[in-house]
Amino acid sequence: MRTQVGIIGAGPSGLLLGQLLHTYGIEAVILERKNPDYVLSRIRAGVLEQGMVDLLDEAGVGRRLHQEALVHDGFEIAFSGRRHRIDLKHSTGGRTVTVYGQTEVTRDLMEARKAAGLTTIYEAADITLHDFDGERPRVRYFKDGVSQELACDFITGCDGFHGVARQSAPANALQTYERVYPFGWLGVLSDTPPVSPELIYVNHDRGFALCSMRSAHRSRYYVQCPLSDDVGEWSDDRFWDELKQRLGPETAGHLVTGASIEKSIAPLRSFVAEPMRFGRLFLAGDAAHIVPPTGAKGLNLAASDVYYLSRALREFYDEGSKSGIDAYSANALRRVWKAERFSWWMTSILHRFPDSDAFTQRIQTAELDYLVSSKAATTSLAENYVGLPY
Amino acid sequence: MRTQVGIIGAGPSGLLLGQLLHTYGIEAVILERKNPDYVLSRIRAGVLEQGMVDLLDEAGVGRRLHQEALVHDGFEIAFSGRRHRIDLKHSTGGRTVTVYGQTEVTRDLMEARKAAGLTTIYEAADITLHDFDGERPRVRYFKDGVSQELACDFITGCDGFHGVARQSAPANALQTYERVYPFGWLGVLSDTPPVSPELIYVNHDRGFALCSMRSAHRSRYYVQCPLSDDVGEWSDDRFWDELKQRLGPETAGHLVTGASIEKSIAPLRSFVAEPMRFGRLFLAGDAAHIVPPTGAKGLNLAASDVYYLSRALREFYDEGSKSGIDAYSANALRRVWKAERFSWWMTSILHRFPDSDAFTQRIQTAELDYLVSSKAATTSLAENYVGLPY
Repeated sequence: MRTQVGIIGAGPSGLLLGQLLHTYGIEAVILERKNPDYVLSRIRAGVLEQGMVDLLDEAGVGRRLHQEALVHDGFEIAFSGRRHRIDLKHSTGGRTVTVYGQTEVTRDLMEARKAAGLTTIYEAADITLHDFDGERPRVRYFKDGVSQELACDFITGCDGFHGVARQSAPANALQTYERVYPFGWLGVLSDTPPVSPELIYVNHDRGFALCSMRSAHRSRYYVQCPLSDDVGEWSDDRFWDELKQRLGPETAGHLVTGASIEKSIAPLRSFVAEPMRFGRLFLAGDAAHIVPPTGAKGLNLAASDVYYLSRALREFYDEGSKSGIDAYSANALRRVWKAERFSWWMTSILHRFPDSDAFTQRIQTAELDYLVSSKAATTSLAENYVGLPY
Repeated sequence: MRTQVGIIGAGPSGLLLGQLLHTYGIEAVILERKNPDYVLSRIRAGVLEQGMVDLLDEAGVGRRLHQEALVHDGFEIAFSGRRHRIDLKHSTGGRTVTVYGQTEVTRDLMEARKAAGLTTIYEAADITLHDFDGERPRVRYFKDGVSQELACDFITGCDGFHGVARQSAPANALQTYERVYPFGWLGVLSDTPPVSPELIYVNHDRGFALCSMRSAHRSRYYVQCPLSDDVGEWSDDRFWDELKQRLGPETAGHLVTGASIEKSIAPLRSFVAEPMRFGRLFLAGDAAHIVPPTGAKGLNLAASDVYYLSRALREFYDEGSKSGIDAYSANALRRVWKAERFSWWMTSILHRFPDSDAFTQRIQTAELDYLVSSKAATTSLAENYVGLPY
């Protein structure tokens, strides 16, 4: 089989890239290791920057989002027992964020891909990447036990942190940067109305908490927990009790609890691989970088990679110019590092670190105090939260 | 001897407080362990916030400052081989900083005190503080070998980090917060024209450097160095060579070198003692808190303490109200922690930390990149640098 762009991974980055390329008249085949149901079962982020919403619109998959998603003009930060609102819209000259689950984004993209009759090969096993240092890259894989080959002009690795794409890059050309945080997020999804119409990020003596949502009827809550915790130790009751303590009596008084429909503990990690291009192999999204979820940048950063990459490929096919391709890694990484900084900083100011001394703790409170009292500091937070320009 | 306010320490905080109280018609006696020449020989900060200049004007000692000082509308940050200007005036709606050595401030205050015939007792030995938990505090000391006592309504400890005032506070009432940084500043004062009319803060692979000045003919330069370094290992030549490397060839090309007239290595420390009031004993300036010099907040923070304290005492004597006195510690500390945060942050983003991993290093660069590219981030830096409002 032959195509123009071979996309590894049918998560939101790969699907969005495929859909954009389709609108540009560029042919792509997506190879995915798992089946569609598995892809859809992954519960992930739910806060979209305007830039990502614009890309989904450009890809022609924004219809349901605009009907169902919640547009948020602000969010809250709670610390020292008080809640403070960050007015995103006012601080950024009208920009907002959109609450719409990653699962929904994936579903919309899958359906659009199906409707357009585009090729996605699910359950493609033992994918290997070849000859991307030349002009004729190839992807080999097994489908139903039979060895297959996809010949293409470019390979794009949208296959996540554990995917084959980054692992296929020449080791001596790859530089990685990593921070593993000494705690995790215990997350619960429940079909209960959110405690508040906007997200609340909570800095509390007992640890961080986050009140988020997927819709007006589905809530997503998190509490910081030790990495050594087993999710089996956390009954629903224990989770709600812990969350209430961190929210404080006033907010907790509005909390509607219910049975969890998903419960898991996720580690927090910062990771960047440089560069993001190796000849005719490109990395995008989690394949190249991970951010801790504080600040909701993971999915949005994947979208910004796809933005740069889709334009670079369009430039190549429409104009025969390699300049976008040559600049892809530098352009994407410039924005990646800004989002890495923001996510690291949001994580730093909102969590309790086990090794934090009394001075560091007071600096954290001073930073939060300053943040909510200074227009400039609030604006800086807001412009990062809604997403820096592409 | 009896007075209304006994001030311990004839550095800039004690002298400024004394002068302000004098203009309010409140009597004060200053006790100082050292002699005037020793006090004047201490080379310290030289960047004054507008708020401090206003206080010096209020105290009637601003005449020479306004003739001789340099008003700076901005400063520069250099990193990754490039210099970026922070326009303080433009970012803060017209606020600036004033370059005028601490020694000059002290000299002006000393002369004003002398001219007004106010009492300063120098070389007061073995100062001890008594009965400040009641309404009749007393200060005992030895002058020329003779035991003396100063009875007063209030004692104010303006005697620095190593002074007797904080050490006299009941240990169980005192909470301290501290961070010692793993490097020092090697500083050189020289009678050479500054390399640039504005300060340059330099983040370089070899470590931090700062180009500062006292006047158009006197420069003050610093390079980050290991704490284990002995100043004797640093010849002038070695210092200038190291500075040039950190400035890079273009800036170094404008550097005029010359014999050092002062050279020393200072450690960097963050320190806060809480509260800042114990009955009728108040702490102000370095007696209560230390900041690392990055950001030039030490002297300015002493001035803001003096602002709150002078107003609290005036309120007490003019109106018989204790409310300013009762609020002093909380008011002063609110601003102290904001300046502590700023100084810690400036130190963090500009120095090389020996234990810093590759991720942290890249985050530092990302933070500097963001800082100079975002109007909101630049404004936040600028508003802190010119001084948050009292």
